[in-house]
Amino acid sequence: MSDTRTHRVWHARSGESPEQASDVVVVEEPLEIRVGGQPVSVTMRTPGYDRELALGFLASEGLLTSAAQVRAVVQTADGPMANVVDVLPAAGVEMALDRMSRHVFTSSSCGLCGKTAIEAVHHNFAPVADTVEVSASTLLALPDRLAAAQAAFARTGGLHAAGVFTPDGSLVVSREDVGRHNAVDKVLGYGLAAGLLPWRRHVLVVSGRSSFEIMQKALAGGLPIVAAVSAPSSLAISFAEESGQTLIGFLRAGRLNVYTHPERIRFDA
Amino acid sequence: MSDTRTHRVWHARSGESPEQASDVVVVEEPLEIRVGGQPVSVTMRTPGYDRELALGFLASEGLLTSAAQVRAVVQTADGPMANVVDVLPAAGVEMALDRMSRHVFTSSSCGLCGKTAIEAVHHNFAPVADTVEVSASTLLALPDRLAAAQAAFARTGGLHAAGVFTPDGSLVVSREDVGRHNAVDKVLGYGLAAGLLPWRRHVLVVSGRSSFEIMQKALAGGLPIVAAVSAPSSLAISFAEESGQTLIGFLRAGRLNVYTHPERIRFDA
Repeated sequence: MSDTRTHRVWHARSGESPEQASDVVVVEEPLEIRVGGQPVSVTMRTPGYDRELALGFLASEGLLTSAAQVRAVVQTADGPMANVVDVLPAAGVEMALDRMSRHVFTSSSCGLCGKTAIEAVHHNFAPVADTVEVSASTLLALPDRLAAAQAAFARTGGLHAAGVFTPDGSLVVSREDVGRHNAVDKVLGYGLAAGLLPWRRHVLVVSGRSSFEIMQKALAGGLPIVAAVSAPSSLAISFAEESGQTLIGFLRAGRLNVYTHPERIRFDA
Repeated sequence: MSDTRTHRVWHARSGESPEQASDVVVVEEPLEIRVGGQPVSVTMRTPGYDRELALGFLASEGLLTSAAQVRAVVQTADGPMANVVDVLPAAGVEMALDRMSRHVFTSSSCGLCGKTAIEAVHHNFAPVADTVEVSASTLLALPDRLAAAQAAFARTGGLHAAGVFTPDGSLVVSREDVGRHNAVDKVLGYGLAAGLLPWRRHVLVVSGRSSFEIMQKALAGGLPIVAAVSAPSSLAISFAEESGQTLIGFLRAGRLNVYTHPERIRFDA
């Protein structure tokens, strides 16, 4: 499956006659994720790396922690089941499908609030404690490296990207998707399948904003440092603070903001 | 509740020492939507207009079509229930909660695919047929008008915006949220509560990209024209084509692309 498609378009500029042209757009299609034949989620995604997407989704829900828990990941190349991925657990492995994170529990202190949501995630994933250090100048180079690895983004402007880098700035894996959470799930699924998780000394870079959901997925992957090209939300900051994660925002044009746990950043100046 | 918060930040530029500063970030908190006391969804949203968010969410799920179906929308100002909105149906009104769009049905022709997903939405919402015309020059002015109405965006860079405009470019309502779908739900909820739906002659403008989900919500509001500042996905285009909607993308800097149903756009040149 291709991740882009061309489409006829009428292109207009202020005060000029419209021209017919051809535009490259990013493909979005539904994917149903099943576990042992039971549907657990439908997500709108960019086709490609669907097995990794399914594995990463289940990992970030706390249902999977290693490839050994999986017997097979089944997807047919085309036909009516092409948009279905079935993750078959290994013999003896039970996945607690009722523990999916959509069900945030309320607490007596605040009812349903950011604190409750963070605690619900910590029920599945312990905070990170790694003391890895990354230099600010290394971080500043990462968005360009991520962009260089993106195949479709430059052509469509319609894709989010996520990439995992080593502390010295080498790219381990990058994935793109029309959905920001899907791009991170694909990266996590790659790590799970390759036996690389947890990524205790690595940096996750995302092309857009950081939110609660992105930080949750980063913690699921064990990642101590998350750097986003755009702004963080208040809950992304609280999550990172409580989870021991270093959160960086506005990583672009030779600048960056460190919001939490700056002890992992080495400033060169 | 305020929709922004200040946070301590370490600000670094390439080759300079870091400075401590204060950064304004957008608030993200969980909201649980209930119907008659029964939880139906938890979404991460920017606090404010929560009742509209709940109404718009239910409208875009096909569960609500008019304010007369609602007896009351209950939310306490603070305390453990501040992040819970309960929509109480009017006497005799049954909401088919099992019909939520997360359950996309498969078809014999393609299994689960974009076509199936579009048909599932058309089961709730008929395609639009209105012949309203809007001039390209009017459309080109809308992103600036939407930005001018945004309170928090300029300060944080972290919010999505959605706005509804009349065919001559007057703003009816705009809302912001950390989640793009939430911003559209808040706009729809305003329209539902004010008895304005369906918006058969109006334009929906969104600050980001257009996707299947955005087009579905626009159709739920009856909107014949959707204009996004960034790129559309392939499924947004297919959805608009099949639903009779005019879809515009890359509406910025004096330019626009028309992807579907250009008959509603009047080019002035």
